[in-house]
Amino acid sequence: MNGLMMDYPLTLQHFLDRVARLYPTKEIATKIGPTMHRYTYADWAKRVNRLAGVLERLGVARGERVGTLAWNTYRHYELYFAVPCAGRVLHTLNLRLPPDQLVYVINHAEDQVIFADASLVPLLDKIKGHLKSVKHFVVMADGALPASALSPVSSYEELLAAESDSFAWPHLEENEAAAMCYTSGTTGNPKAALYSHRAIFLHSLAQGMSGSFGISERDIVLPVVPMFHANAWGLPFTSTMVGAKQVFPGPHLSPPDLLNLIQSERVTITAGVPTIWIGILAELERNGHYDISSLRTMPVGGSAVPRALMEKYEKKYGVPITQAWGMTEMTPLGTVSVLKSYMADWPEERRFDYRVKQGMPSVGVDIRAVDEDGKEVPWDGKTMGELEVRGPWIISAYYKMEGNQDRFHDGWFRTGDVVSIDPEGYIQIVDRTKDLVKSGGEWISSVDLENAIMAHPKVLEAAVIAINHPRWQERPLALVVAKADFKGQISKEEIQEMLAAKFTKWWVPDDVVFIDAVPKTSVGKFDKKVLRDQFKDHVLPA
Amino acid sequence: MNGLMMDYPLTLQHFLDRVARLYPTKEIATKIGPTMHRYTYADWAKRVNRLAGVLERLGVARGERVGTLAWNTYRHYELYFAVPCAGRVLHTLNLRLPPDQLVYVINHAEDQVIFADASLVPLLDKIKGHLKSVKHFVVMADGALPASALSPVSSYEELLAAESDSFAWPHLEENEAAAMCYTSGTTGNPKAALYSHRAIFLHSLAQGMSGSFGISERDIVLPVVPMFHANAWGLPFTSTMVGAKQVFPGPHLSPPDLLNLIQSERVTITAGVPTIWIGILAELERNGHYDISSLRTMPVGGSAVPRALMEKYEKKYGVPITQAWGMTEMTPLGTVSVLKSYMADWPEERRFDYRVKQGMPSVGVDIRAVDEDGKEVPWDGKTMGELEVRGPWIISAYYKMEGNQDRFHDGWFRTGDVVSIDPEGYIQIVDRTKDLVKSGGEWISSVDLENAIMAHPKVLEAAVIAINHPRWQERPLALVVAKADFKGQISKEEIQEMLAAKFTKWWVPDDVVFIDAVPKTSVGKFDKKVLRDQFKDHVLPA
Repeated sequence: MNGLMMDYPLTLQHFLDRVARLYPTKEIATKIGPTMHRYTYADWAKRVNRLAGVLERLGVARGERVGTLAWNTYRHYELYFAVPCAGRVLHTLNLRLPPDQLVYVINHAEDQVIFADASLVPLLDKIKGHLKSVKHFVVMADGALPASALSPVSSYEELLAAESDSFAWPHLEENEAAAMCYTSGTTGNPKAALYSHRAIFLHSLAQGMSGSFGISERDIVLPVVPMFHANAWGLPFTSTMVGAKQVFPGPHLSPPDLLNLIQSERVTITAGVPTIWIGILAELERNGHYDISSLRTMPVGGSAVPRALMEKYEKKYGVPITQAWGMTEMTPLGTVSVLKSYMADWPEERRFDYRVKQGMPSVGVDIRAVDEDGKEVPWDGKTMGELEVRGPWIISAYYKMEGNQDRFHDGWFRTGDVVSIDPEGYIQIVDRTKDLVKSGGEWISSVDLENAIMAHPKVLEAAVIAINHPRWQERPLALVVAKADFKGQISKEEIQEMLAAKFTKWWVPDDVVFIDAVPKTSVGKFDKKVLRDQFKDHVLPA
Repeated sequence: MNGLMMDYPLTLQHFLDRVARLYPTKEIATKIGPTMHRYTYADWAKRVNRLAGVLERLGVARGERVGTLAWNTYRHYELYFAVPCAGRVLHTLNLRLPPDQLVYVINHAEDQVIFADASLVPLLDKIKGHLKSVKHFVVMADGALPASALSPVSSYEELLAAESDSFAWPHLEENEAAAMCYTSGTTGNPKAALYSHRAIFLHSLAQGMSGSFGISERDIVLPVVPMFHANAWGLPFTSTMVGAKQVFPGPHLSPPDLLNLIQSERVTITAGVPTIWIGILAELERNGHYDISSLRTMPVGGSAVPRALMEKYEKKYGVPITQAWGMTEMTPLGTVSVLKSYMADWPEERRFDYRVKQGMPSVGVDIRAVDEDGKEVPWDGKTMGELEVRGPWIISAYYKMEGNQDRFHDGWFRTGDVVSIDPEGYIQIVDRTKDLVKSGGEWISSVDLENAIMAHPKVLEAAVIAINHPRWQERPLALVVAKADFKGQISKEEIQEMLAAKFTKWWVPDDVVFIDAVPKTSVGKFDKKVLRDQFKDHVLPA
């Protein structure tokens, strides 16, 4: 027997209508060079209506993809709603992708139009000859359009000026596609998550909950995480849903720029990757004059936040960092490390032990960790397993790669992260499955070993990779970069002895090789693929 | 084009699984006579599994209804999850219904089993001969079962003892029915809302949001609103979703009982109708020794909260009352009166003006007010219209009354409430449509007139009803009860003059009749139906 509830689709049109009616006077502020652009949700909603008219006029059909190549600005935010609410699909392009990958994702998504910031036109100029589906370019400029070879090309502002404040929004179903984002995979071509309206709607509700980010109308939200990266973690959608003031930094991401923005706009919540907050902390330590007392929390994701960073922010600056974890394939929120009420009585040391973990699953997300046979491992905080997730905002397939099912397992998405889950339900990421060293049927975490080696005062960087081994299948090899002052003054044995004191004997790498630098990916992560290639014939000592 | 998200159904099974895994040690406390029954979510979940086994054993089929006749207790809360998670439908019976209506709703719902508190068995004994569908009675008792004529009858505890801690939960779809509740309509037979899993899931997310009730794991939640009334406003579901501690008062609803419970359990949020808080306030004023400092908010609904009550609680006891509005047909939350951030700077007087309104629509709820032609009226805080609502947790029809569509209009549910909506989006209920006086094409609020008359120092109660009028269609008639000390010492003219000073001339009732008492419904509301019958031939002065 079915319930007799209205068949009310969960779409972004509800957010658009809601914010325009209930919070018309609240502000959206964007840093544009030395000044701020400011307008209200009422102004914004009118332009979103006009922008939907532009999509019609440009001949983009329902369900077709609209690319955006833009920084975090109010115009990008207009696209965030006009495109999906008009039944088209927002495809945010990662402006940091190498040109060949940018070409690949635009062609793969079959983008019909690309909306680009004026400052990013040179990037498009370089690749335009390779784009197969794009019929129109629209440039978002504050003054005259920059010279370019793009064609046909229009001015965003001129197109908007020609449309009406009131668009006849189509009826949407909640499972229709709203947006898409490609992963910046380190192996093979980027793969796309295609988000439904329903997924984003539910994700926003979860993120607005008290026990999660708790974003409400009272917040002033500054997404430092780019809008081309996993929906800026969903923050623009959640902020719209609740009517929070939004602050966009544009391309101005230097620590002093961000700190001035936090101070002048009285930002209460700002989110980004740890490297951003490392830079900000350095600036705070140099120049103590910033007032960041308005901040109530800083969600951090993308990679694990160093414990020292979290402690420093909290103890010296009174700003609690909230560790979170997600994936492009998850809209992206998966877990948040919020302490439970009874943990407030725990010793500080233990509280930080939990705060630096990736946290507990959000409402709407199921988690489990499985061993190599796909069997669930216990939540004992020790046993490692690959994290699998399930929920209404997690992909069931990659876009136009529906055959590519090796990332799915029995209705669960295989994250590729190796974790332990403790009895409280907090996950801790131990490694990526592909970086794990599988020795004699047991798993060795390359990340744990790297962190231990990098804690050595003479070491700058270290990467641990697996080397094939006739008896143990794989054994760890440590590749170590000494600090400039200690080059040649640190020995293999010194590293091995240090590790032997900290880990069980069979975890200690069979060999240590000193190298000049660890190769990095385009987003600054260790590129172990290169190292594995380079050392694939390395012979371990017997 | 559809998004490629998992088809993950939004069901209560997610809440059950989540709370048992993430919050197994959190507590559920129930007042049982002079003592407290305490156990954890882990204990509770095991019994919920056993209870699902009991439903199988009793032969209740998927989709069939299971009646509950119970106070707010942990056992009732076990039924709240076992029944819907097993794919059966929870039908909470209003223990205050007159016996004939109780018979009607049980037969109309075709309840297969009734679970009843031992103390309520006499109620069932009285009506059992009239029940057509019930095949089994289960009595929830702490000791031996009370003597009764019920048959067949089993002990809840004995049935649970025979089952296993681990039930094989069926796969559910999110649109399947989870629960149902009949309205205590003042006209005709009660009508039922049939809630889907999806509706309750989404309702819980909305209620957990920071800008709504903001219920989180840190809360200790005491629902004074009965669990047989509109899902206890959804609180047990939301609390489970987030892992909040729950406190159930059992039948112990006297002000000292509730105050002692708030104090001893350190309750942070408690919800109920205004009469409860009026009683509590009186007790606080008599005995100042209660410590209620743990309370962070008290949501109030069911009817409008008197402003003086709200001010007193806040100023003297530091407890903010949060006015909310909903309906059985809405799962039930519709609006919450939470102030917007910029209203914090308003003068106190104006802040209370807004706080006593019914508030802004929850995320997921669309509102509009329409005139008699079904045309939307402006949000100007003055123009009256019937409130219509739309959303995923609002009924599209009454159960087994699908033909009865006069309460639905163009995809919207007609609430029967006459409201004004102000430019900030806050609704204020002015009257019920059926109580409104429609004079010469204009609307007169009977409630406004009644409140004004009842503010007269010599008046105890007043009801205003519409009388047919040859020229104006309807005109208001005031029926007034004088206070005992002023009987015969107050005149018709005195009332009319007072109203003329306060309202526009054509609002003033054409006649005032003094009566001994205003007739009341079973839940204590003014029964204007009786008055309209009684005065239907009343001749107004020319």
